[in-house]
Amino acid sequence: MSHVTCIGIATLDLVFRVDTYPTGPGKYPAHGRDEIGGGVAANAAVTVAALGGEAAFIGCVGDDLTGDRIVAGLASAGVDVAAVRRVAGAASPLSAVLVDGTGDRLIVNHADPDLFSAGPPVDHHELAGTAAVLTDMRWPGGAVPALLEARERGLPAIVDCDHDPAVNRGTEILAAATHVIFSLPTLMAFTGGADAEEAMRSVAEHTDAWVAATAGDEGVYWLDDGSVHHRSAFVVDVVDTLGAGDVFHGAFALAIVEGQSVESALRFATGASAVKCTRTGGRAGIPDRREVAAFLESNP
Amino acid sequence: MSHVTCIGIATLDLVFRVDTYPTGPGKYPAHGRDEIGGGVAANAAVTVAALGGEAAFIGCVGDDLTGDRIVAGLASAGVDVAAVRRVAGAASPLSAVLVDGTGDRLIVNHADPDLFSAGPPVDHHELAGTAAVLTDMRWPGGAVPALLEARERGLPAIVDCDHDPAVNRGTEILAAATHVIFSLPTLMAFTGGADAEEAMRSVAEHTDAWVAATAGDEGVYWLDDGSVHHRSAFVVDVVDTLGAGDVFHGAFALAIVEGQSVESALRFATGASAVKCTRTGGRAGIPDRREVAAFLESNP
Repeated sequence: MSHVTCIGIATLDLVFRVDTYPTGPGKYPAHGRDEIGGGVAANAAVTVAALGGEAAFIGCVGDDLTGDRIVAGLASAGVDVAAVRRVAGAASPLSAVLVDGTGDRLIVNHADPDLFSAGPPVDHHELAGTAAVLTDMRWPGGAVPALLEARERGLPAIVDCDHDPAVNRGTEILAAATHVIFSLPTLMAFTGGADAEEAMRSVAEHTDAWVAATAGDEGVYWLDDGSVHHRSAFVVDVVDTLGAGDVFHGAFALAIVEGQSVESALRFATGASAVKCTRTGGRAGIPDRREVAAFLESNP
Repeated sequence: MSHVTCIGIATLDLVFRVDTYPTGPGKYPAHGRDEIGGGVAANAAVTVAALGGEAAFIGCVGDDLTGDRIVAGLASAGVDVAAVRRVAGAASPLSAVLVDGTGDRLIVNHADPDLFSAGPPVDHHELAGTAAVLTDMRWPGGAVPALLEARERGLPAIVDCDHDPAVNRGTEILAAATHVIFSLPTLMAFTGGADAEEAMRSVAEHTDAWVAATAGDEGVYWLDDGSVHHRSAFVVDVVDTLGAGDVFHGAFALAIVEGQSVESALRFATGASAVKCTRTGGRAGIPDRREVAAFLESNP
């Protein structure tokens, strides 16, 4: 069964369309507005579902109206939300996102510091039907036990590492994984490596996982049998990169669960992420399976 | 009966506490967050209720969850919301407010352009019990008939003019009023006057109303029998000016309804506004009657 359990953060993004970014105090009118779900693990779950897999999301949101909207948005995208933790008295993660039409984003995000410490850790019963676990770095109490449980059962235990692992039990998360995909800037900052190759080799001190690093329009690096490999990104007209990394990780996890090789999974993930970048909106731009297949066919 | 009907805009403000204001695209973490009602006429209604008057708010909000929160916030402040228009399919006005702790604000606000045109105009039956009408400039379809109805019945028809009256039927609103209180920058821009006095005299082309102009910590100017008068602001430790103008107008309207002279009403409004400026939060900083009375007693 192609079932991926995604564990970590879900947010509500309030997107304001502005003519120019604010430069200081004052009043700035927005000429449009959207509300859309976001968050690293939550967007990955939506990607898995959009690409034809079965997806569950486990994470913490408040028992507020923002949390209602976050959960409803995931459910309407076909994600199983039965194990979402609703934390009493906590505010759900919320971001104000300013968009000026050039593809750039200004994001002000807030998460209640007590939210994730209050959520009950993931229990092995909650992973009964899953074929893989994919986590971000926001909720160690969820990620660590779930990754360890997946490893123990011989399942892929995949980590999207876009945050400094030196904080918030990040090194525990890395150590529990079978696959870690860094963003290249995070990897370089964490290891102090002089280049991608050195950084990827030195991260082996922290994890025995297969390691990759995404580098935006430079493509993706990965380590295989001690040597560094590279795949270029597809050349597309980028209009919006918001959520592109989340799409990459969701697509990669699904492909691995489907039994694809890592090279094939990386190609699939790179393609899914490329299609997403040609569309405006974060979650709204996530492609379906047919669209990714057509893209890969015409970009061999 | 000290009943003021406030007509115009109500918003939900999402307040993010940040260390520094954003300077361009990127991710900026907020270390705190609040949700609080705002909007010119809505805050004035809350002020009237807080100062012991009876207040109704009439305006347009969407039939969305944001609108639910706006209406619930007004009701919990003691404002009559029975005549609020819930416009199907429209987004309620929403602002992202960034606060850096210095008292300044960066506000990104969005209102659906179709919201106010879709709201049914105010009907004279809806003003049956009121002793005064106070409007802002956002909803001419509400403000103009309500002001005309109040005038016809010999009641105060008060306008808070903080927007350029040259747009959005603003001159119709001015012409329908018995009392217009400008913000001084708006008045200067509208009339092209060289100073407060010239600007106040030349606005008589547009309205036969009594006219005043608030000038923040410079106090307030008003025109009486052809001559310009001035009252200084009280000297207080200003921590937050958000909503101070709305408090001024609500307090002024209530004082007029209570039969105070304009001089006395201006002193009362200046005092209420001064107390508000010593407190953080927009609506959260609105004082009650006892607090304003104590302030005025100790600041003769």
